[in-house]
Amino acid sequence: MPELIRIPDGELEPLLSRVLTARGTPADRADLTARIVADNQREGVHSHGLNRFPALVRGIAAGHVDPRADPARVAGTAALEQWDGALGLGPWNATQAMHRALTLAGQHGIGAVGLRRTNHWLRAGTYALQAAAAGRIGICWTNTMPLMPPWGGCTPRLGNNPLAIALPSSGEPLLVDLALSQFSNGRLEVLRRRAETLPVVGGLDAAGQPSRDPGAILASRRPLPIGHWKGSALAVALDALAAVISGGQSTHEIGRQATEQGVSQVFLALQPGHGAAAMVGAILDDLRASPPADPAAPVRAPGDARRARREECTRLGVPVDAAIWAEISTL
Amino acid sequence: MPELIRIPDGELEPLLSRVLTARGTPADRADLTARIVADNQREGVHSHGLNRFPALVRGIAAGHVDPRADPARVAGTAALEQWDGALGLGPWNATQAMHRALTLAGQHGIGAVGLRRTNHWLRAGTYALQAAAAGRIGICWTNTMPLMPPWGGCTPRLGNNPLAIALPSSGEPLLVDLALSQFSNGRLEVLRRRAETLPVVGGLDAAGQPSRDPGAILASRRPLPIGHWKGSALAVALDALAAVISGGQSTHEIGRQATEQGVSQVFLALQPGHGAAAMVGAILDDLRASPPADPAAPVRAPGDARRARREECTRLGVPVDAAIWAEISTL
Repeated sequence: MPELIRIPDGELEPLLSRVLTARGTPADRADLTARIVADNQREGVHSHGLNRFPALVRGIAAGHVDPRADPARVAGTAALEQWDGALGLGPWNATQAMHRALTLAGQHGIGAVGLRRTNHWLRAGTYALQAAAAGRIGICWTNTMPLMPPWGGCTPRLGNNPLAIALPSSGEPLLVDLALSQFSNGRLEVLRRRAETLPVVGGLDAAGQPSRDPGAILASRRPLPIGHWKGSALAVALDALAAVISGGQSTHEIGRQATEQGVSQVFLALQPGHGAAAMVGAILDDLRASPPADPAAPVRAPGDARRARREECTRLGVPVDAAIWAEISTL
Repeated sequence: MPELIRIPDGELEPLLSRVLTARGTPADRADLTARIVADNQREGVHSHGLNRFPALVRGIAAGHVDPRADPARVAGTAALEQWDGALGLGPWNATQAMHRALTLAGQHGIGAVGLRRTNHWLRAGTYALQAAAAGRIGICWTNTMPLMPPWGGCTPRLGNNPLAIALPSSGEPLLVDLALSQFSNGRLEVLRRRAETLPVVGGLDAAGQPSRDPGAILASRRPLPIGHWKGSALAVALDALAAVISGGQSTHEIGRQATEQGVSQVFLALQPGHGAAAMVGAILDDLRASPPADPAAPVRAPGDARRARREECTRLGVPVDAAIWAEISTL
């Protein structure tokens, strides 16, 4: 089981930013990326926080990610634009793209940006929350390399295509952020190391039988999409939308490369109508008031855990995997 | 098990339209609704075809659906508009709303319509396909009355909030159309009558244990969302988006009424870029070429079954549940 240590909150971002600038990343995008990595870690999304940072740095070193590139608009019709990410830093490109979608939504009520030739954006929720922080609705998704077999198939062919939706609320924004596999590979690896069984079926084993053994699913490369045939179809649709709206690569094209590079993403922003935040707040309150299956475990609304985690980081420091921290400290 | 009979394709729509006009429905919307019901039946979606038609007619008779009402624009900013469905016919309102979203997409690249105070639209896919038939991308979803417990809850609180996405392709459009419950109540009822076991876990029984028994899940009212906690969160987000974008009711408000009435829906249309249909065709071809788990069952692309079913209806007649047909013939 990974050993967690606590790093004082103020130390995290300067260190990450220094690692990136030492690899030739201009200060503005190094600071932004460091903030996004630290925020993901603070909100408990370790798989897309520090755990992924070494891979990002290796991507820069290997030339798969150009830390100096800037995304550029290549086409557009009023509220819908296509941007080229020039194989730059995923978090930088995605932040610019959502910023542009927000500007378009300010002008047209709704704005959409398709971003092609970009790289891993870390966590989908970051950019949906960017919209909510600006008082708007944010929806975004990305395609990925092939990670799951389609329904009826037995080899990876579909991306898990993470999707995030955020709405301003009377309290914390409502954030829903999900990959279309029931469990991410990162999560399966953590649970395999701990010798834990999955809480629900997460894939098929090598014999094609439903399995709750993370090791068996990693070995078979047959993780299940959420909802079986339903998530399989939804993954196809999100990939097609990302490729068509951005004019970029789809999962089957990304899969022909040696590494995941040049993915396609979509960013939607909408102006919410009058009273929207109160409406969302009432929906979340109704959810929290739902009779729980276990009287000791009240039903939580999306976002409830996030706030508590952030507050704990400010008070106690940010929890970090000791081995990952040791690796980052040598980068 | 229901007995299926075949009705000559040409007889279906005139009969359905006559039933609706006899209940005070103007001819234009009676014909449109009859066509949508018949098309859903032809494509094999019986639950949202003829099986639901008697309920629609009863809704008109009871005054829950006003067959003469017309939807009207109530607010808007350029590419984003809010419409009021005036508690009219769901398929008529939804068709008008997607038509308007398509017009907005023609002007702004993307168009969005939030439709409030509308009624059951039958099948989500109908309106996404309407966009694809116009050469555009269509995305639409609806909220519903409470049908599923949220994750950690034990009583229905979330809608199953059907979502449809369609893209023009080089062949049949790509259509993905899914409710967020693993199985619809209609499907559970059919399988219970046949004394069949579900192919995968579909809910929890009264003791809170995972179940593949459709009768046990109908009795407990605890169907599972797709992907467990993931579909639960997605259902909350789609409900919030529908309510906020339309300015209409959310699931918890619909649940306070005696019947499902005055639901909220969203219609998005986008102009696809150059070469989009070929890109989608290549994605579907890659899917069909995927190695199948069962060599006798090739992987299918969304849409493959639809076309074959329509062709069969033209040739052999439309398959109809004999009991439902007898009921409709007396309406």
